[in-house]
Amino acid sequence: MDFSIRTATLEDCKDIARMILELAEYEKVLDQVKVTQKDLEQDGFIKNPFFHGIVAEVPEEHRTIEGHIKVGYALYFYSYSSWKGRAVYMEDLYVMPDFRGMGIGKALMSKVAQLGLAAGCSQLNFTVLDWNKPSLDFYLSQGCTDITASIGYHCLRCEGDKLEQLAKGSA
Amino acid sequence: MDFSIRTATLEDCKDIARMILELAEYEKVLDQVKVTQKDLEQDGFIKNPFFHGIVAEVPEEHRTIEGHIKVGYALYFYSYSSWKGRAVYMEDLYVMPDFRGMGIGKALMSKVAQLGLAAGCSQLNFTVLDWNKPSLDFYLSQGCTDITASIGYHCLRCEGDKLEQLAKGSA
Repeated sequence: MDFSIRTATLEDCKDIARMILELAEYEKVLDQVKVTQKDLEQDGFIKNPFFHGIVAEVPEEHRTIEGHIKVGYALYFYSYSSWKGRAVYMEDLYVMPDFRGMGIGKALMSKVAQLGLAAGCSQLNFTVLDWNKPSLDFYLSQGCTDITASIGYHCLRCEGDKLEQLAKGSA
Repeated sequence: MDFSIRTATLEDCKDIARMILELAEYEKVLDQVKVTQKDLEQDGFIKNPFFHGIVAEVPEEHRTIEGHIKVGYALYFYSYSSWKGRAVYMEDLYVMPDFRGMGIGKALMSKVAQLGLAAGCSQLNFTVLDWNKPSLDFYLSQGCTDITASIGYHCLRCEGDKLEQLAKGSA
């Protein structure tokens, strides 16, 4: 099946918000999603955007029963390694189930790598949930290394009241 | 001991580069550090910087034998969670060994949290090496959660030749 990958625009936020919910459902964390179409519009399409996006589109004749032609997306942002310098972080990569196995996920990821290299980045970083074996296997097959398994990187997070307390110096 | 925390400027890059090497030595990865003072100047002080920095300074009378008064730093950048929206990522947090136990690390981290909240972020994210128990314990004491241990987040990375291949679609 033909498909195309292009930079996401403001008009894609509705479909990206829909697919974020689909991905969260797959990852069993639907109740955790607070991001709305409006948030995406406000956070990704301002002067110093918090993220960038790309979308995968199929021709009209392959649209879904619901009428969707945007069937995949990736969100990314630029980051920094104090060892290696410029890096790109892929926050999300998603392809709708009926459109998997056609190379769309690989093409989206390849595009993020291209954009990163063009911006002078030497690393592509992202996270995956350890029970999500199909994704983990896919990423490993694409030349990625699980640096939690190999060198012991653990992800830490502070949020909610704890973050407020930390900011006040009262943790 | 008195100390102050302030936004890093171009003139701080020499000291930050020095402390990046000190931290890498502690983390036993000195050979991995490619970032130079010049890289920091170029990547952190352009129109859309790849990172932001803050430094901790002590008064002249407490300078080190080598004459340093900049004794700690944190690097951070803004990021995005497709579930929770705006987030801040702390890339590095370091305090020189002779200046630990005085609250400088806590103050640096608190400042990153403040800056994140001020920018509308609801999460502070970072990584720690699992063998670095003193750091891990410190972060947990500050209200952070180890989301690798609790929900199985693994960090993945693609770099070097593998990243080039991924970008070419030939992985």
